[in-house]
Amino acid sequence: MKVGIVGGGQLARMLALAGVPLGHEFLVLTPDRDAPAAPVAELLLGDYDDPELLRTLAARVDVVTYEFENLPVDALARLAASVPLRPGVEALRISQDRAEEKACFTALGIPVAPYRPVASLEELREAAQQIPLPALLKTRRLGYDGKGQVPIASPDRLDEAWERIGKVPCLLESKIAFERELSIVAARDLQGEIRIYPLVENHHERGILRRSIAPAPALSSELLSQAEDYVFRLLQRLDYVGVLALECFVHEGRLLANEMAPRVHNSGHWTLEGADTSQFENHLRAITGAPLGSCSARGESRMLNLIGALPPLPELLAIEGAHVHLYGKEAKPGRKLGHVTLVGEPGASWPSRCQELESRVEIFLP
Amino acid sequence: MKVGIVGGGQLARMLALAGVPLGHEFLVLTPDRDAPAAPVAELLLGDYDDPELLRTLAARVDVVTYEFENLPVDALARLAASVPLRPGVEALRISQDRAEEKACFTALGIPVAPYRPVASLEELREAAQQIPLPALLKTRRLGYDGKGQVPIASPDRLDEAWERIGKVPCLLESKIAFERELSIVAARDLQGEIRIYPLVENHHERGILRRSIAPAPALSSELLSQAEDYVFRLLQRLDYVGVLALECFVHEGRLLANEMAPRVHNSGHWTLEGADTSQFENHLRAITGAPLGSCSARGESRMLNLIGALPPLPELLAIEGAHVHLYGKEAKPGRKLGHVTLVGEPGASWPSRCQELESRVEIFLP
Repeated sequence: MKVGIVGGGQLARMLALAGVPLGHEFLVLTPDRDAPAAPVAELLLGDYDDPELLRTLAARVDVVTYEFENLPVDALARLAASVPLRPGVEALRISQDRAEEKACFTALGIPVAPYRPVASLEELREAAQQIPLPALLKTRRLGYDGKGQVPIASPDRLDEAWERIGKVPCLLESKIAFERELSIVAARDLQGEIRIYPLVENHHERGILRRSIAPAPALSSELLSQAEDYVFRLLQRLDYVGVLALECFVHEGRLLANEMAPRVHNSGHWTLEGADTSQFENHLRAITGAPLGSCSARGESRMLNLIGALPPLPELLAIEGAHVHLYGKEAKPGRKLGHVTLVGEPGASWPSRCQELESRVEIFLP
Repeated sequence: MKVGIVGGGQLARMLALAGVPLGHEFLVLTPDRDAPAAPVAELLLGDYDDPELLRTLAARVDVVTYEFENLPVDALARLAASVPLRPGVEALRISQDRAEEKACFTALGIPVAPYRPVASLEELREAAQQIPLPALLKTRRLGYDGKGQVPIASPDRLDEAWERIGKVPCLLESKIAFERELSIVAARDLQGEIRIYPLVENHHERGILRRSIAPAPALSSELLSQAEDYVFRLLQRLDYVGVLALECFVHEGRLLANEMAPRVHNSGHWTLEGADTSQFENHLRAITGAPLGSCSARGESRMLNLIGALPPLPELLAIEGAHVHLYGKEAKPGRKLGHVTLVGEPGASWPSRCQELESRVEIFLP
């Protein structure tokens, strides 16, 4: 099949790398001639809301997907009128707006941290009466990798926070002293079959994913079934087709949903080597109408993002068992340039192998 | 690094798919605009001995490799004068000629089936006095997938066989009633380090590889160490850099070398999912000066070639645990169009999973 992808970053690159062996061809809409997907896909160069380009994309492919969620919903809705868009516009619309997202979670009985939408300084002041400080002021839109967030420690900082966030529609969200961050990645196919990967433990640094451990260690069966239940409800509610990630906090022993991503997700990169079927292949299976593959883990995986700078490749490859994935991007502090995954059986040598990996990879944040 | 590949078939395609995640770029010399490598590499369209194209290739890449061995040695020798060619010309030269190959094996103390080079009908008649019939008349050059071979059952068929083979330089080789066909794939890096994959059992139909089972079951430790010893000697003798495959027969409990391939090999495709590091990645690691990765197997693998025709993709993907690799080639009887690999732990369900795979894949031979 000919698959269109809106966005040409590393997720598009890894989708194409997973899809070429299945015989699929890829046409990628991106404004960037040097996009990470360029070596493995044909590019359609231009803006995401260019009507002419979107018509071309629709005419030339069998199905369209997207690799990030900050896309013009109206333009994609028009696209979806002439070619199957999977996942659909609804998932995109909801995930673009933190208020919509939280409302969706709440309507499905999925718990979230206390929050209030605010659209003015007055509303922020009111909200701060109800949401205990310290809290986070988050833009409703365009937040990723820790962007679009301002912490508020005390009531005298409300004005300053409102200035810093840019006076745009926001949420004031209770700052949860969470015990752990988890994510769950799952796929739903055209027939409605759902398969769920094991829960993953994630560690962030300044809002950027640094490390994933899969399956997340020492999980109660209660947490596990909560997470599976929540992601199941979401996939059903959205009549979803493809891979979706749900990020959660563990707070006082229970899950609170933080946000969802209607796409393959960084916390699922370990599946490339650590699971029977990678998230990239399962996303493609789903959107092309094929049955899903097994989401079982092979042993334990440790995924480390390469952020801001890259060690020399031979050094990375000298780490026994390291699976290296570079994205072909120019180095820049805070930018995700690649990732490395170790897969092993938990046992005597596993912690030291993980330790070796960690010691070889420095990160550079802005 | 920028890697040049001479040849654009499925091996080039899978090399590029393995190399893009390592940040390498690929420039592929092929006469075929629709070559399997086309979706994942830049093509340099033209003939393998076009001096102008070879100069362009040398100027634009850091290292050159090849994905099949029936290439003009002189042209590649000139290429090797201006850019590193890995593996080198010597391996290419020897593997192109069955007589050179057998002589090389013999010089290294690697046993082969009895054979005699023949260049005329008279020589064939003489050879038939020394090589017990039934025997195989094989062209010295350009043999692959069972091509370039004529069986000779009895002395009265010598004239006919000489006609059928085209009166070209040949070997007359004793037709061994072998018990099994095995192959061993190994890699040697720029520093001379060698890593060896587990031995593989292969089943051919009409000279075309149908099935590989890895690791080969029920091997004596003697056979195993013989095979490792032979491939080790070959790699050392050729000062080899990259992946090499050695195909062997088991005859009366001992190994006889049949032929070698100075490249990644069909009987190593199972390593994509079944080994810690795939043969494609290890070939690239070697030729780009990086250290080799582990060749350990993960459980047991069963690789089946898709020959002549393809079942519908959703049917293939419905086989639990099937890893599907299509090559983007037009269907034609006898043509390798893709392969499917199952990886599992030997146990109760493994034989039935293999059986299911086998029952879903028909092959079409000419």
